[in-house]
Amino acid sequence: MIDNSAAFETAGYGRYPVSHLPLRIETGPESLRLVWDDGRESEFHYLWLRDNCPCAQCVSSLTREQLFEICDVPLSIRPETAQLNGDYLEVQWQGDGHSSRFHPGWLRTHCYSEQARAGRQWQPEIWDKATIEASLPKYDYADMMQDDAVLLCWLRKLRDCGISLLQNTDTRPGTLQQVAERISFIRETNFGTLFDVRSKPDANTAAYTTLRLPLHTDLPTRELQPGLQFLHCLENDASGGESILVDGFRIAEHMREEYPDDFDALSRLPMDFYNKDRNSDYRFRGPALVLDGQGTVIEVRFANFLRGPLDVPADQVVRHYRAYSTFIRLTREPRFQFEYRLVPGDLLVFDNRRVLHARRAFDLQQGQRHLQGCYVDRDELLSRIRVLERSL
Amino acid sequence: MIDNSAAFETAGYGRYPVSHLPLRIETGPESLRLVWDDGRESEFHYLWLRDNCPCAQCVSSLTREQLFEICDVPLSIRPETAQLNGDYLEVQWQGDGHSSRFHPGWLRTHCYSEQARAGRQWQPEIWDKATIEASLPKYDYADMMQDDAVLLCWLRKLRDCGISLLQNTDTRPGTLQQVAERISFIRETNFGTLFDVRSKPDANTAAYTTLRLPLHTDLPTRELQPGLQFLHCLENDASGGESILVDGFRIAEHMREEYPDDFDALSRLPMDFYNKDRNSDYRFRGPALVLDGQGTVIEVRFANFLRGPLDVPADQVVRHYRAYSTFIRLTREPRFQFEYRLVPGDLLVFDNRRVLHARRAFDLQQGQRHLQGCYVDRDELLSRIRVLERSL
Repeated sequence: MIDNSAAFETAGYGRYPVSHLPLRIETGPESLRLVWDDGRESEFHYLWLRDNCPCAQCVSSLTREQLFEICDVPLSIRPETAQLNGDYLEVQWQGDGHSSRFHPGWLRTHCYSEQARAGRQWQPEIWDKATIEASLPKYDYADMMQDDAVLLCWLRKLRDCGISLLQNTDTRPGTLQQVAERISFIRETNFGTLFDVRSKPDANTAAYTTLRLPLHTDLPTRELQPGLQFLHCLENDASGGESILVDGFRIAEHMREEYPDDFDALSRLPMDFYNKDRNSDYRFRGPALVLDGQGTVIEVRFANFLRGPLDVPADQVVRHYRAYSTFIRLTREPRFQFEYRLVPGDLLVFDNRRVLHARRAFDLQQGQRHLQGCYVDRDELLSRIRVLERSL
Repeated sequence: MIDNSAAFETAGYGRYPVSHLPLRIETGPESLRLVWDDGRESEFHYLWLRDNCPCAQCVSSLTREQLFEICDVPLSIRPETAQLNGDYLEVQWQGDGHSSRFHPGWLRTHCYSEQARAGRQWQPEIWDKATIEASLPKYDYADMMQDDAVLLCWLRKLRDCGISLLQNTDTRPGTLQQVAERISFIRETNFGTLFDVRSKPDANTAAYTTLRLPLHTDLPTRELQPGLQFLHCLENDASGGESILVDGFRIAEHMREEYPDDFDALSRLPMDFYNKDRNSDYRFRGPALVLDGQGTVIEVRFANFLRGPLDVPADQVVRHYRAYSTFIRLTREPRFQFEYRLVPGDLLVFDNRRVLHARRAFDLQQGQRHLQGCYVDRDELLSRIRVLERSL
């Protein structure tokens, strides 16, 4: 019998339910092939299996961290025997005679066939004005605070859709910290931990004026732009000040199709982002569109008002400006813009490395406008989702 | 006369001393060429000049942030006139008749000729056992706390060499926070802000045991590995526990020369770094060697005990393990290892994204071992250097 609850408890905290059973194994020169009861085949290399041995000698029972180092066995390591025993894969290794035992649920989860790898690929939900107006993810503050299942739904939506609205949030200043800590600790930046967004006489950035803010990501001047951005509306009876949000991934995909050279330029040519203040001088150099190894856009870095002089080879200057102008013009197109006026108790949360945000100018003759903001990084979001998924 | 002190005060806080004067300009179809009194030539594109106009209409006098957006002028923008006037470059633009005036020191600083760009390239000081033993950068705690000039020397050395020792540091717990705040705020992580490194009964990571720690970077499980790592020795009369440090850039360059395919594999194939705990589950996927656009190694990500199962295409598995084993074996070679035994009052600071650190196992029969640690990011280091350079 397979003991699912205890499965691999020395090697981690995950549970690996057995959805399919291994039928047989076929050993080859540097790997074995495991054939499952649904016909799928998983190739596991001997080096990979030896590296992942979960026994208490290879993995610390206390810290769950690996003690074994793969360079201490020959690259040519081979099994003396490899067999299925009670649905576990058991391997005894040549040389030192070490034995390893692998749980079938764990093996299935970590199969690295092309098909399995494709199935693990994250797919964002891309949006534009029409689609987000029809389906803006909304959650109730009290529900989310009390119920871990609601919390998990909210966080998954933030991960996939990059935007959400929490409603009926307590409007006492500082409430935002409790909301953020439902996920984890707050990411501190050169603007502090919790920051107040309102017009200030000594404003060191456009956010702290009444001026229009064009579409941008926050802190492109830092190597790691903050992940989630929280904007909690405490007061908003000034005229103007509407929020505008655009899915940067949507703009990027549109550019890739319609303006391929502009897309290429923005993903390859670095830009210089500067935030110069009296007591700090932050600069970061990187492309506006960040791609992963497969060419998928995973990040947008963009704030016109936080740039330094362009520093690229002379023959790329005009190309950059063409691409950059195309990008700004696209962000201004109404079909991509979600416009929303925050009311007190609204807490807008979005992926700052994907969703560009803007604000119309406002006028304090008629009333006040006061938001509180903070950041939580993607690492914390994803960790929290994984831990919640362990128990729900 | 050129007013250096006030130069470009609307556009930033920098000073741009005039080392050379412009002699003449030659206008072309999409750029002008500025010829300096030392014979150097700087090409400035019209789009670039228009984008960098520092006037109060284009840049907010309050926030020093740009108000102008380049997409609001045609890509074909040209000067009506462009001339030198009192060593300033003055341009009046076709179309709206806008005027821009550029300070010669600022222009020289931001020239993007091939030569100028090459001169701005940062060069790390790479080290191995022999060179660092001969020239470990050492600073006195009190001097550094009191004197901004010493602070600047220390920080530049940390940037370039990636390692330093602060001596005679007050051994009261918490002193570390004051040291870190000489730079800026502390980077919080899933291990907190200030952390205590000593053997703990409920250790959730190998650092908090008495075990040997192999060479590693901290928190490769996070998207942004912490930049500077601080280790402040409060007590160390246990036997064993010596610190070992290796310049990861040195190992990487050695690999590039001697094992080019291994180097290529570690810079291209992603690894999965996991840190699984009861209440968190951090994972990051990325290569062990991170290169910039020019192929220079700018980061090393490496901790054998914080890895998840390798997840790469099947035909790359053996290649990865070969490269990975080569890397670990190189880190173990004595010619690369700087070994040092911390004494109370020592504060070791190093670039955690470059320098691998290790610790020998220790034995608490003979005494205690207690370090305090924290992190400060590269962004803060570089910002602080720039601000200090403004006034020193």
